[in-house]
Amino acid sequence: MNGKSTMMDFLEEPLPGVGTYEDFNTIDWVREKSRDRDRHREITNRSKESTWALLHSVSDAFSGWLLMLFIGLLAGSLAGLIDISAHWMTDLKEGVCLAGFWFNHEHCCWKSNTTFTDRDKCPEWKSWSQLILGYGEGAFAYILNYFMYVVWALMFSLLAVLLVKGFAPYACGSGIPEIKTILSGFIIRGYLGKWTLVIKTITLVLAVSSGLSLGKEGPLVHVACCCGNILCHLFTKYRKNEAKRREVLSAAAAAGVSVAFGAPIGGVLFSLEEVSYYFPLKTLWRSFFAALVAAFTLRSINPFGNSRLVLFYVEFHMPWHLLELVPFILLGIFGGLWGAFFIRSNIAWCRRRKTTRLGKYPVLEVFVVTAITAILAFPNEYTRMSTSELISELFNDCGILDSSKLCEYVNDFNSTKGDDLPDRAAGPGVYTAMWQLALALIMKVFITIFTFGMKVPSGLFIPSMAVGAIAGRLLGVAVEQLAFYHHDWAIFSGWCSQGADCITPGLYAMVGAAACLGGVTRMTVSLVVIMFELTGGLEYIVPLMAAAMTSKWVADAVGREGIYDAHIRLNGYPFLEAKEEFSHKTRAMDVMRPRKNDPPLTVITQDSMTVEDVETIVTNTTYSGYPVVVSRASQRLVGFVLRRDLIISIENARKKQDGIVSTSIICFTDYCPPLPPSSPSVLKLRSILDLSPFTVTDETPMEIVVDIFRKLGLRQCLVTHNGKLLGIITKKDVLKHIAQMANQDPESILFN
Amino acid sequence: MNGKSTMMDFLEEPLPGVGTYEDFNTIDWVREKSRDRDRHREITNRSKESTWALLHSVSDAFSGWLLMLFIGLLAGSLAGLIDISAHWMTDLKEGVCLAGFWFNHEHCCWKSNTTFTDRDKCPEWKSWSQLILGYGEGAFAYILNYFMYVVWALMFSLLAVLLVKGFAPYACGSGIPEIKTILSGFIIRGYLGKWTLVIKTITLVLAVSSGLSLGKEGPLVHVACCCGNILCHLFTKYRKNEAKRREVLSAAAAAGVSVAFGAPIGGVLFSLEEVSYYFPLKTLWRSFFAALVAAFTLRSINPFGNSRLVLFYVEFHMPWHLLELVPFILLGIFGGLWGAFFIRSNIAWCRRRKTTRLGKYPVLEVFVVTAITAILAFPNEYTRMSTSELISELFNDCGILDSSKLCEYVNDFNSTKGDDLPDRAAGPGVYTAMWQLALALIMKVFITIFTFGMKVPSGLFIPSMAVGAIAGRLLGVAVEQLAFYHHDWAIFSGWCSQGADCITPGLYAMVGAAACLGGVTRMTVSLVVIMFELTGGLEYIVPLMAAAMTSKWVADAVGREGIYDAHIRLNGYPFLEAKEEFSHKTRAMDVMRPRKNDPPLTVITQDSMTVEDVETIVTNTTYSGYPVVVSRASQRLVGFVLRRDLIISIENARKKQDGIVSTSIICFTDYCPPLPPSSPSVLKLRSILDLSPFTVTDETPMEIVVDIFRKLGLRQCLVTHNGKLLGIITKKDVLKHIAQMANQDPESILFN
Repeated sequence: MNGKSTMMDFLEEPLPGVGTYEDFNTIDWVREKSRDRDRHREITNRSKESTWALLHSVSDAFSGWLLMLFIGLLAGSLAGLIDISAHWMTDLKEGVCLAGFWFNHEHCCWKSNTTFTDRDKCPEWKSWSQLILGYGEGAFAYILNYFMYVVWALMFSLLAVLLVKGFAPYACGSGIPEIKTILSGFIIRGYLGKWTLVIKTITLVLAVSSGLSLGKEGPLVHVACCCGNILCHLFTKYRKNEAKRREVLSAAAAAGVSVAFGAPIGGVLFSLEEVSYYFPLKTLWRSFFAALVAAFTLRSINPFGNSRLVLFYVEFHMPWHLLELVPFILLGIFGGLWGAFFIRSNIAWCRRRKTTRLGKYPVLEVFVVTAITAILAFPNEYTRMSTSELISELFNDCGILDSSKLCEYVNDFNSTKGDDLPDRAAGPGVYTAMWQLALALIMKVFITIFTFGMKVPSGLFIPSMAVGAIAGRLLGVAVEQLAFYHHDWAIFSGWCSQGADCITPGLYAMVGAAACLGGVTRMTVSLVVIMFELTGGLEYIVPLMAAAMTSKWVADAVGREGIYDAHIRLNGYPFLEAKEEFSHKTRAMDVMRPRKNDPPLTVITQDSMTVEDVETIVTNTTYSGYPVVVSRASQRLVGFVLRRDLIISIENARKKQDGIVSTSIICFTDYCPPLPPSSPSVLKLRSILDLSPFTVTDETPMEIVVDIFRKLGLRQCLVTHNGKLLGIITKKDVLKHIAQMANQDPESILFN
Repeated sequence: MNGKSTMMDFLEEPLPGVGTYEDFNTIDWVREKSRDRDRHREITNRSKESTWALLHSVSDAFSGWLLMLFIGLLAGSLAGLIDISAHWMTDLKEGVCLAGFWFNHEHCCWKSNTTFTDRDKCPEWKSWSQLILGYGEGAFAYILNYFMYVVWALMFSLLAVLLVKGFAPYACGSGIPEIKTILSGFIIRGYLGKWTLVIKTITLVLAVSSGLSLGKEGPLVHVACCCGNILCHLFTKYRKNEAKRREVLSAAAAAGVSVAFGAPIGGVLFSLEEVSYYFPLKTLWRSFFAALVAAFTLRSINPFGNSRLVLFYVEFHMPWHLLELVPFILLGIFGGLWGAFFIRSNIAWCRRRKTTRLGKYPVLEVFVVTAITAILAFPNEYTRMSTSELISELFNDCGILDSSKLCEYVNDFNSTKGDDLPDRAAGPGVYTAMWQLALALIMKVFITIFTFGMKVPSGLFIPSMAVGAIAGRLLGVAVEQLAFYHHDWAIFSGWCSQGADCITPGLYAMVGAAACLGGVTRMTVSLVVIMFELTGGLEYIVPLMAAAMTSKWVADAVGREGIYDAHIRLNGYPFLEAKEEFSHKTRAMDVMRPRKNDPPLTVITQDSMTVEDVETIVTNTTYSGYPVVVSRASQRLVGFVLRRDLIISIENARKKQDGIVSTSIICFTDYCPPLPPSSPSVLKLRSILDLSPFTVTDETPMEIVVDIFRKLGLRQCLVTHNGKLLGIITKKDVLKHIAQMANQDPESILFN
């Protein structure tokens, strides 16, 4: 056997189509991984033959790293582009820069020579009323600005929904439920394609700019995964192998979170904990590389203008006190309750959208929600600003120079030492801010339920964090004032004397944000790490962890599923949850087909069926594969053949191979039985037979079967009893059984 | 069936001993997990019956968290104790505190009223010559101090080796290879027992204090795992289930690294990447909790006296420049080469120790190595100080107030702005330090090879980091001086003008430490995260990653295995590496027993063998289990029965069950065939029969078989052909086959 022919055997498919999958099908991880090992072995063996082959082998080994580099660069660049555009377009709703319409408010005023405190008010920046009417004060100017704000918001969101509807229906939503499903081995063609990438990038900017209660963080994961999928086409290794491609997608998801939050370690952990299904350690290291490259690409683009990697950089001056764990745990409880409430309401609303006529008018829906959001948002400065600005302001610790309303405390400069401000009495500004924040909280809590799931790209991280941050800041200021006015109370004595800086309301906002995000997504380690990277302080891991743990426990007590899993179930994606233990006491015989009283299992015999027989079986059934047995009488299992491979092979043989007619015997064995000389030639199909199908006995507990399906990534498994073939369990059967055991409708699962 | 009897069925073993394992055996993960699921299901079902049962169910759910809390507290306390004792005893080699002999040098001088710069020289601290002779200067005093240093070192190390030899032989080494093996499912009784814990804790302090070239970080993982294992006994859930216990041990390993470096996130990733085998996501979150608790316990004990969580806190003032990646990558190459060199030499030396008479004199060996180390170490101040102090000093960036020799630059205070010192010409102190460091490097490189593997607790993290840090600092100072004297060179122009602070030698030391640690252990993500947590700077992830990547690639090119895997192989532990792909094209039939020309597989029939027949089979063979078939003629598989269960059951039946004699038929089926009335009663053994043994076909590629063994944690797997039982593959067969394929001696694997 020379090198060339071996090459043909392993690298090229014998027939085009054999070994590929149809849309909305599940991949066979075992087969894909085997194929990649064969390919790798082939390249390694050949590398000893010539320098060229050696170079090929080395380049093959490094192609993974190169791909990660490209993904990092592309994802980072796109994230930078999205950040800059969204920032500019968000400001466009309020006014325009005369120095150049492409400057956003902040950049516009940087160019100006105004002082530091007045940096938001510079002559070059004109609000719409100033531009149109020539003045910016007064009721009429206010109404004009209000009107322009709503009009721009509607324009952006309508454009977004029309683009999504017209060009890339897959571009809507956050994409994380679908990516989880794809990574678990499902095929949704086009979901990570170039059109989705282009439209999602554009519409994401539009959606964020429209001021809807949504974030760009989840969709950025989708964008990064699209980049990964498209870049896979550069390398045969990844283009042709669905399992290898999924490794790349896991890394791309990490890069997506990394650029979304500037948190490379958190991104990798998020991908590991939340998104990925098959995550070997090699991928962990590569993901980390991709995440770092992406984060540094974003940093060199510098969209936040502060040369920091992180989104919300904060620096607190004071350590926290052990007693503060009580309010932190309260925030955790709030986060958990809100998370559970949000998931229930959002799923109920989405189900209503799916089942009633509501779903037929996505554009109208977006129009109405945007209009309501914009109309409610404008009068309140905390909802008018972009949500990430709001979070940033809430996280912020009040310094001496801070001019925001939230920092309008009654100043007592006698007791100030350096940058350390003691706790002070709240001034009128703080009280106003409290009221406005409370209103903003109520609005965000309800409007987000209706926003998430509309036909525009929409992430959930930022709105959840905003809800939590508002609640946290409110509680933080309350505790701060309590401690200021009652520092002689027993609970404050000893650590919070008069004139000391003991409560940091910004920290409460941070903890609240973590709690709400945890309640909605049920992330754990990755949540804490992201929050810690987001804000850059190792000191606050314990409060964050306390809140995240409480929040997860409370939310899990109300409803087991996180928002992504709930949406996966709502959409009926065939996702085999790796975290939930299957806890029922059923056995393989209860799940396998055929059930009792069903007709017996459709099998193909190894050397006694004709082409016509097999074609009849294929036509009359819709199974995706058939077991091959020694004979119908013995039912002893030989192997498994896939429907798709069978159809393609028979068709091909009929066309190209001489003497194959309907009465030809199909033979799956190495040595076919001798036939009378008059009979037509035999069709040998051993090459498409899987000689190592997975089998379990009928007595095997379903918990073990589920474990095997999960860990090995099977598509189907055959069931035997005392060595005889009894039935078959497919991934669909497993999923249906799990749904049935959880008292859900097993027919809701989308599957081919 | 009432609750009571169900309880009996699932929770209590029918016979004591059935379902347990012997020493040096491999556990069956599938069975252990099944048993835990049964237990859990039982508790959940009963929780609906009464309030008491509900409370039991809740406490059962939270027992995992409680256990983590205990482990964190205990591991943190022990680590603090070890730190404090080791610090005191290290200083005891040089002198004693008059204010109280229990103070170490630093604490002793804190009490004193000396100024900041003279903090190391206070009247209360007496060197041995001052105490004995009354003066500290001069040749005789020097010789006396030298002598006392060597004597103390020898005393400490001899005490350590005698304690290990006499009381707990398992307490030697770093313990990480053994813990990896245990976590993969092997049983080594006593390895994580209370004696090992006590002796390891004491001898670790002694070994570190003796000044040998070893660290306490690896052994701390062992100590934490001992804590975990011992605390498991508090909870039935973990005491009785080997799989659940291993989840706890994974978390304990994370806590160990967390306290060793003050790096909770790095600890969890280390456990995930390097140590653990089965690491479900639930464990990830719990490990993080344990690691945090441990880190905070350690911090409240505050052994470093700086109230910081981290071991080597550094703060650099300047960002790094892209061109500096070249020296960083050079350090990576050095680290990789050193790592590979170290592993080869250390393994060669350890093999020599194992195979020659050398291994019979562990005490003498420790004596000689300690004597050589102490004699060489004393004259050089960089080897005389403890290794972690050395690393701390090397990592440090020179400030204005630094009095160390490494910071003796030619000062030019005119160009100094604030804390930012520009690059300066090195003074004589720096040049002396360079020479001393170079000598220290040579000594550490060679002495560590002979130290790691001796019969004392010895970690490898700190010595590797020291080697890298010295190399890095040397290179850093070289580059700094080059940039100072040649700032007009093209490579420096543009970023390193005269009077600028552009090179930070401490950063080079940090990168070098990461590179060498990576070269030896082949850690990736966890290495970068630990280094980043260790030093507290997100800014330097890219240099660290560049060095770690280069180091791993270079080291992998020279030899595939990390030090822990090399030691696992050296000791012949049955560890199935999860990271290495099995890349050979063999099939199950090539590996299974019986081989061609062997006698046929020993099987038991389901209802036709007598007690005597079975006893003969058990006596004549040593297999750990036997397949049960329908009949010898058909060879159709029914199930699998374990040798241990079989022996215990038959013995028990013979003792307690009436009418069981040698001629009794053993029946594994539900309905036993009717027998003539005269025949003795039938022994029904269905309860010990595993009705769902794993099977593969003879044509299954070994790569898939290896994958199944790894992912499902099997002990054995049966091989069938066309439905007939052909043979069996055990984990031992798989390991032997892998060793054979890698041209190693397959008989070296230790296994029962």
